[in-house]
Amino acid sequence: MTSEPVRDLAHLSHVEVLTPKPEESLWYFRDVLGMEVSGESGDSVYLRGFGDYERASLKLTAAAQAGVGHLAYRTVSPEALERRVAALAGAEGEWLEGDLGHGPAYSFLDPDGHRLELYYESERYEPPAELKPALKNQPQRYTGRGVGVRHLDHVNFLAVDPGANRAFCESGLGLRLTEQIVLDDGSEAGVWLAAGQKSYDLTYTRDATGTRGRFHHAAFFVDQREDVLRAADIFLENGIVMESGPHKHAIQQTFFLYTWEPGGNRIEVCAGGYLIFDPAHEPVVWTQAERAKGQAWGMQTVASFHIKGTPPVPQEDELLAAH
Amino acid sequence: MTSEPVRDLAHLSHVEVLTPKPEESLWYFRDVLGMEVSGESGDSVYLRGFGDYERASLKLTAAAQAGVGHLAYRTVSPEALERRVAALAGAEGEWLEGDLGHGPAYSFLDPDGHRLELYYESERYEPPAELKPALKNQPQRYTGRGVGVRHLDHVNFLAVDPGANRAFCESGLGLRLTEQIVLDDGSEAGVWLAAGQKSYDLTYTRDATGTRGRFHHAAFFVDQREDVLRAADIFLENGIVMESGPHKHAIQQTFFLYTWEPGGNRIEVCAGGYLIFDPAHEPVVWTQAERAKGQAWGMQTVASFHIKGTPPVPQEDELLAAH
Amino acid sequence: MTSEPVRDLAHLSHVEVLTPKPEESLWYFRDVLGMEVSGESGDSVYLRGFGDYERASLKLTAAAQAGVGHLAYRTVSPEALERRVAALAGAEGEWLEGDLGHGPAYSFLDPDGHRLELYYESERYEPPAELKPALKNQPQRYTGRGVGVRHLDHVNFLAVDPGANRAFCESGLGLRLTEQIVLDDGSEAGVWLAAGQKSYDLTYTRDATGTRGRFHHAAFFVDQREDVLRAADIFLENGIVMESGPHKHAIQQTFFLYTWEPGGNRIEVCAGGYLIFDPAHEPVVWTQAERAKGQAWGMQTVASFHIKGTPPVPQEDELLAAH
Amino acid sequence: MTSEPVRDLAHLSHVEVLTPKPEESLWYFRDVLGMEVSGESGDSVYLRGFGDYERASLKLTAAAQAGVGHLAYRTVSPEALERRVAALAGAEGEWLEGDLGHGPAYSFLDPDGHRLELYYESERYEPPAELKPALKNQPQRYTGRGVGVRHLDHVNFLAVDPGANRAFCESGLGLRLTEQIVLDDGSEAGVWLAAGQKSYDLTYTRDATGTRGRFHHAAFFVDQREDVLRAADIFLENGIVMESGPHKHAIQQTFFLYTWEPGGNRIEVCAGGYLIFDPAHEPVVWTQAERAKGQAWGMQTVASFHIKGTPPVPQEDELLAAH
Repeated sequence: MTSEPVRDLAHLSHVEVLTPKPEESLWYFRDVLGMEVSGESGDSVYLRGFGDYERASLKLTAAAQAGVGHLAYRTVSPEALERRVAALAGAEGEWLEGDLGHGPAYSFLDPDGHRLELYYESERYEPPAELKPALKNQPQRYTGRGVGVRHLDHVNFLAVDPGANRAFCESGLGLRLTEQIVLDDGSEAGVWLAAGQKSYDLTYTRDATGTRGRFHHAAFFVDQREDVLRAADIFLENGIVMESGPHKHAIQQTFFLYTWEPGGNRIEVCAGGYLIFDPAHEPVVWTQAERAKGQAWGMQTVASFHIKGTPPVPQEDELLAAH
Repeated sequence: MTSEPVRDLAHLSHVEVLTPKPEESLWYFRDVLGMEVSGESGDSVYLRGFGDYERASLKLTAAAQAGVGHLAYRTVSPEALERRVAALAGAEGEWLEGDLGHGPAYSFLDPDGHRLELYYESERYEPPAELKPALKNQPQRYTGRGVGVRHLDHVNFLAVDPGANRAFCESGLGLRLTEQIVLDDGSEAGVWLAAGQKSYDLTYTRDATGTRGRFHHAAFFVDQREDVLRAADIFLENGIVMESGPHKHAIQQTFFLYTWEPGGNRIEVCAGGYLIFDPAHEPVVWTQAERAKGQAWGMQTVASFHIKGTPPVPQEDELLAAH
Repeated sequence: MTSEPVRDLAHLSHVEVLTPKPEESLWYFRDVLGMEVSGESGDSVYLRGFGDYERASLKLTAAAQAGVGHLAYRTVSPEALERRVAALAGAEGEWLEGDLGHGPAYSFLDPDGHRLELYYESERYEPPAELKPALKNQPQRYTGRGVGVRHLDHVNFLAVDPGANRAFCESGLGLRLTEQIVLDDGSEAGVWLAAGQKSYDLTYTRDATGTRGRFHHAAFFVDQREDVLRAADIFLENGIVMESGPHKHAIQQTFFLYTWEPGGNRIEVCAGGYLIFDPAHEPVVWTQAERAKGQAWGMQTVASFHIKGTPPVPQEDELLAAH
Repeated sequence: MTSEPVRDLAHLSHVEVLTPKPEESLWYFRDVLGMEVSGESGDSVYLRGFGDYERASLKLTAAAQAGVGHLAYRTVSPEALERRVAALAGAEGEWLEGDLGHGPAYSFLDPDGHRLELYYESERYEPPAELKPALKNQPQRYTGRGVGVRHLDHVNFLAVDPGANRAFCESGLGLRLTEQIVLDDGSEAGVWLAAGQKSYDLTYTRDATGTRGRFHHAAFFVDQREDVLRAADIFLENGIVMESGPHKHAIQQTFFLYTWEPGGNRIEVCAGGYLIFDPAHEPVVWTQAERAKGQAWGMQTVASFHIKGTPPVPQEDELLAAH
């Protein structure tokens, strides 16, 4: 007996990144990644990739510390939004009036303390004259400046208990688990979740410092693996520190490159991966032993990748020193 | 007032291509495109790309003439299959027992006379030892032989009236119109339809010969545009005639390369394109004048592209001669 | 009995392109191709690719008509320069004082009337602070702006008699013939010549209008074929007309894309090709029949490619109309 | 006062690799790298890339231990060969009769004890019918099997004193030093040498074990960085261990991927790098501090890269354990 798959969320929509160095961070996202500024409000600047159909996929907000303000999904319909709010009854959420680019949003916390928002009403982006695309099936001109990212691809949160967050996202949001790491003790060290056919858009991996509510990274998509290599050349010329990559993940097969933006957050440029067409897709489970093999082509994951997040916490230093 | 989007079809699943030269066609798909044989039955050989999660995405059947036998979509659930069969009540379909790799299928004709099938029960592909992948999130080994296509991407039918077929696919199948060509007289010269977030998987373009039920092409996907260029080098070395490309379509932005397989059917290798995340996506409409501009980077579409299909008909020659 | 190969010329160094629209042309080379301005003098602006070790590979000069002012090769040594001047005794050349970036140059005309220069003394480029590269084995920073060409690759002149110019370049300059088109009547319709291991840097193809001294195109190099595809996307967004490509030449196997810069000159972005390591390389000869097959992957060469040059002449219109 | 550059060597021609597992090594080079067997003789099999104009660039010889038998350069002329033999008077070389594919060769040892050969007479490769290329300017068909390497790119020897070998190659062979590592104590830890415009074809790096005559790696060239990424996918599927990469070298900027072939030798697949056009190129000198920064995009070089060579020596294990 089959129960029909829940698909109330349309897609990961945007992420609010906090930065203690707003000008330098803005330079990174606009001049190096090649995003466009599409709005400003208070301490926040809104940015977008050339392929984002909504106004913004990144809200960059000045703050005392690096980290994430919130993450938002758009639902497939107003009715779907209502269904999700009902399903999230226990999460003590609240309605917000909306923000630049979208309408009323339901805001709540995941079990680890990250803030999420759901909304349906959205403003379809209309580019100004200088950003009109040559092809009308593209939301905005590809400017050829910097890396030139297309859209927000996924967000990775750290969590004390990834499994608890996975269960919350499945039941509360109707996200689908596509891959996961299950350790020998049965606990989940990492979970990859998807709203649609992209194989993931939200990830939780275990916080080695035992801290709640931290941000691991956000990833922006480029079309070709060669674009990631070109991004590495651009980061090099701009003095941006690359934590690891370019390389191919074993999990999800994403071709990745991790950098530190000037505000201290980890930002990824990625390509590749795969689409999941199977409506009854069984999650791919990676064991502790398989995970120990490193990335797809043999690179050992750097220690900082398992430890560092934003905001930074003192335990990071101890753990890194222990390596 | 919003009505919720219908999403009963999960994805384009497979296409049955007819060939009067079965051995040469098999060589093309297996040795040049790099697909794997995953079954045989009667006059048919079943083939797959390394990323197909089902047993086969291509059924290659010996026949007197080139063309398409049928095209199949998998539904998202058994219930969705029932809903679709009910919605197709007027199409005079019938139930088939199923085929190698999938269960019972509902078979019917589109308004132009192409045979389509819907099914839900599907066999998840289990590779033999020599095709076991190194990464468990990949259905099959990437062998490095020939072009190395990942999966079936889309099918393009010719039709006397693309608009009528578009309406049928929207109401009968719940497919979503994503792009279309509307001529100055209001008629639809081409329609692009999608089941999921891929921007299209089924296309109807006007048959210049006025013939019903013909096949324009099927396309197989590779990950990188560079893979398409490499495919062109491989086709060149194998004496495969390339009709046009590599180039980028204005419509859908697919990076394409069209070849003639030895049996006479047009087969495309493609990359790129874009995903549609917007649940309320408005179809992109191209006018007659916009269409006359040629492809994205300026290449004029070759005359044969608008005229030739399979099975071939005498009118093709007259029309080509008139160019 | 072998005579040792002559290798007095080190490499194609720069080309002076004439433009009746200097501001628009400057925009094309600087903002779209991504070259850097490295000097100005009189009506000329000097530009460079990020990989050029000399000051400039392009001298862009305001003029009444499009075309080429001159083309320059650097010799391998002062002695080689003397040898070449002696070998060019009959060419009625003259010594020039030098130009921004290089020392005294010997200036002369090829049999078709194009002006060439040879020099040895050269200024090694020192980038200003904002263009310092991250890696010291690179002459200049890769900025990530626009196409981002590495260096001047080759120049193609039109000529009434390519064979006569080929003979002149072999004996007078010590260039090596690497490929050529020999028609059924024995005449040479195209010749490709090289100073070093790059398979060509100077080409003469027959001027269909029978005019002397015209310019067909100059080509700038990018590292990857994907960079050429990306260039096409950038040209598209900037409204630059692409005459043909991206595609692969049968002759020389260069992956090419031809555009019209705003001043009216044909400019190519190219990648690929091959190196010639054989010191006794035999020229590859293409017959009329082989040439008629079109480009490597089957594209028929557009008529304008065989007819149009700069400066434009009235005969072009007649010939194009006749097609 | 300039002395004219010496350019008696045309190019690195081939390398003889020794293997204790000849069948497995042959599988690696033929089926995984995609090279073609072009001859057999005694315990040796000769292989070639699709772009090699000579018969073979690899002689694979069964032996008790992994390592290199010899490495060969072709001279630009018979006279150049005579000049080099005269310049090598002190090296106690001897004339060999020649080998499959080339004529008489002068054989000698470099200061570290590696065997080198020089020859001029060479057999131009004529492909058998099944390997005839579609384009006549290509020595052999590109088969689309495996990685598909174009030609031998460079060889890296380990040496107790790289500087002594550099001096020998400059004076004895007329090779040009293009880049080098000079440590704080003034000693040379690595030297990169070139015969022509490719920025290097022979490298000596310090042997951390203090052993003479060892082999670090040989590299085969592919045209695109994407081809290296595709190679990594193919190695992964074939169970070939990748030591490091894909990544970009700071020195020489080569995009690299190091593997262990089954016989125990390190084999690289590479792309990119740059050409040196400057006839008076000054070597790029890297300091100890610059070298400590790791590779271009930040990857720290793995310890084994500095220690392991063929034949293996017991000191390797001690040094690796000390890391």
